[in-house]
Amino acid sequence: MSINKKLTIGLFGFGVVGEGLYKILQQTPSLNASIKRICIKNSEKERNAPKGLFTSNRKELLDDNEIDVIVEVINESEPAFEIVQSALRNGKKVVSASKKMIAQHLPELLELQKETRLSLLYEASACASIPLIRNLEEYYDNDLLHSLKGIVNGSTNYILTKIFEEKLDFEQALLQAQQLGFAEANPTLDVNGWDAVHKWVILLLHAYGIVSKPDDILFTGIQNIQGSDATAGREKNFEIRLVGHAKKLPNGKVAAFLLPQFVRPDDHLSFVKNEYNGAVIESSFADKQFFYGKGAGSFPTASAVLSDISALNYNYKYGYKKLYNHQPSELSNDFYLRIYLSFDHWDFVPKDSFEWIDEWHAERNRKYLIGVIHISKLLRDNWWRENGTSLILAPEAIVDNAEITKLKLKGLELTVLNLN
Amino acid sequence: MSINKKLTIGLFGFGVVGEGLYKILQQTPSLNASIKRICIKNSEKERNAPKGLFTSNRKELLDDNEIDVIVEVINESEPAFEIVQSALRNGKKVVSASKKMIAQHLPELLELQKETRLSLLYEASACASIPLIRNLEEYYDNDLLHSLKGIVNGSTNYILTKIFEEKLDFEQALLQAQQLGFAEANPTLDVNGWDAVHKWVILLLHAYGIVSKPDDILFTGIQNIQGSDATAGREKNFEIRLVGHAKKLPNGKVAAFLLPQFVRPDDHLSFVKNEYNGAVIESSFADKQFFYGKGAGSFPTASAVLSDISALNYNYKYGYKKLYNHQPSELSNDFYLRIYLSFDHWDFVPKDSFEWIDEWHAERNRKYLIGVIHISKLLRDNWWRENGTSLILAPEAIVDNAEITKLKLKGLELTVLNLN
Repeated sequence: MSINKKLTIGLFGFGVVGEGLYKILQQTPSLNASIKRICIKNSEKERNAPKGLFTSNRKELLDDNEIDVIVEVINESEPAFEIVQSALRNGKKVVSASKKMIAQHLPELLELQKETRLSLLYEASACASIPLIRNLEEYYDNDLLHSLKGIVNGSTNYILTKIFEEKLDFEQALLQAQQLGFAEANPTLDVNGWDAVHKWVILLLHAYGIVSKPDDILFTGIQNIQGSDATAGREKNFEIRLVGHAKKLPNGKVAAFLLPQFVRPDDHLSFVKNEYNGAVIESSFADKQFFYGKGAGSFPTASAVLSDISALNYNYKYGYKKLYNHQPSELSNDFYLRIYLSFDHWDFVPKDSFEWIDEWHAERNRKYLIGVIHISKLLRDNWWRENGTSLILAPEAIVDNAEITKLKLKGLELTVLNLN
Repeated sequence: MSINKKLTIGLFGFGVVGEGLYKILQQTPSLNASIKRICIKNSEKERNAPKGLFTSNRKELLDDNEIDVIVEVINESEPAFEIVQSALRNGKKVVSASKKMIAQHLPELLELQKETRLSLLYEASACASIPLIRNLEEYYDNDLLHSLKGIVNGSTNYILTKIFEEKLDFEQALLQAQQLGFAEANPTLDVNGWDAVHKWVILLLHAYGIVSKPDDILFTGIQNIQGSDATAGREKNFEIRLVGHAKKLPNGKVAAFLLPQFVRPDDHLSFVKNEYNGAVIESSFADKQFFYGKGAGSFPTASAVLSDISALNYNYKYGYKKLYNHQPSELSNDFYLRIYLSFDHWDFVPKDSFEWIDEWHAERNRKYLIGVIHISKLLRDNWWRENGTSLILAPEAIVDNAEITKLKLKGLELTVLNLN
């Protein structure tokens, strides 16, 4: 076994991740890779690297025959897609960290990889330093994967932890997250769940071979969570996390959604606090596997990019085995969820949409119920995100169809009628 | 991308793992592999599989040209080695779960793989269902790995958990572990640390490219731990775990040892209770990654074997990159450990062997000290395993050489003289 030739890299982006990567590569010659040229928007700005490395002309990287790898860590997703597309078409391998771009262009990126037979690696795009994509792709590569659930956004997890542990209100917690660099100046993408759902789309591909769009997945962020929800959770000894779910149903299809959830103290995900990420993979015979680590930040992200670069030394490619070699799975739109819903007034809640309601509670200012509802009633409508209504999944979110049938036979859905 | 031809397996061993594997392969045709023949000691015994599958003649598997994969899950390590050797020499790929055999034959197995260029995979041999070997090999494949620490033996961890949580004594806890199937009828290999150190030898190879023998590593099990140790731990809010360590020192060499250790409540390893396993991988830029899951048992072990079989569908081999492509690391015998030591009488403790002693405590029946000692004083001698003496690592086990120098200059080693 011998070392392949040295990789020559063209780097797009010199923000915290790009600069982190530049420093790491300088410090570790054994990685067998060096950056030849860096493309940024404003090449005149003062940087912590020799001025001669920088250019604002993409072509100086994309058309350079000496450069065999393009690493793309820029923020905007459309330019990122153009860069990845040109790089692959120009015969260069690509490492990308742009989750939004990848999640929004899955079909084109799969096609480009087929066409060019070149590596496109993007471990950094989901949970940064936790090697989830590679493990789903390589290790859980059979059809025995029962479920994947995970906390994939560090900034919302930080805010939720502070709301629970220090009883901060949402705005204080968000401000603290921003001050510590765990949340963006414009936190909407994080707080409203967009960042997390982009990652979830990517993980669904590697977990189950499902090619989906964010819109195909029922999701929201933590924007509607109220102090009273935390109080209700605390009474039952639950904490709240923003959790992505993907679970194979008895009919072989996959239920996928990403919503706030009450978690029990003995749930692996309750171990995941502050800015950390974590995922639980359940398979037929291995039981539950828990992966935990830093899911964001310059060095954890750069380290994932680094592992991808290192894999290029050995010509590693994603095989997308579940998509191409197995029967790929489909998303299901036919299952039931047990949810907690808090709201200001019963008028905001279409009670008839529920199969049944387990429990309800009313105080002067705020009311809540716990009930079972079909996913289609949430996918189709927006009432549960409006008027200050807050939806949080119960700890066991998916309700078995058999349970529904049994309880319906007993007439338990009638409890709905008694509410007012 | 296309599916390779179906794998035809010859299976050695039909104990819990072998039978589990047989069932799984029958239930999941998508795995693209089937068992043609099973070799066992006594082919006349009644089994839960068609009689015609069984033979007690190795050659019927090893010489069968239709069989392209040998899966070996037998208990005895010398026959296992012979089987693996013959299989590879006969042009067959091999999956093995025999940790003892692998740990004791690393150099020969590496040579055989070089010679035959065939895959030998053994994910099941270390932590069963947790994909540690594959991740160390593929994902942490650069020289930025700071440290690996892990709980790699479920049965000792179960016993320690019961001693702490239910205040059972050692014998009761062991009996319970045996009744639940978490400990062997003859538990010596587990309890005395042999099973764990075999796994540690294998993990050291994939983490750092170190080819070692169990004897090269300072280790013991939990056989000397006393109820009073648990009490001393509880007073400081520590629990006890049996922990393997591998850490790159400032001089580039690797400190490796496997000993009982006090762990703090905020240590990731304190999350690992009962029969579970867990490992923490620390790298320069990714910070700490935590992997957790079932480390033993028929189905978790069979599931790791299964993932290896699945990888053979794509011709996966371990690259041993750290051994062959990087500068492989060496074990260090020059570092200091901070240890807790409990004993019945001062006469059993060579006090002069300690650099200094931080703390000591004496009651009528049992005494303990916390002090700093050079690894060579433990590697060379056996006094710390004899006369009922019990050694437990402090939470931060490795003492920085700079700290030693500083404290020696201050003359703190003199405290040793005051003991009696």
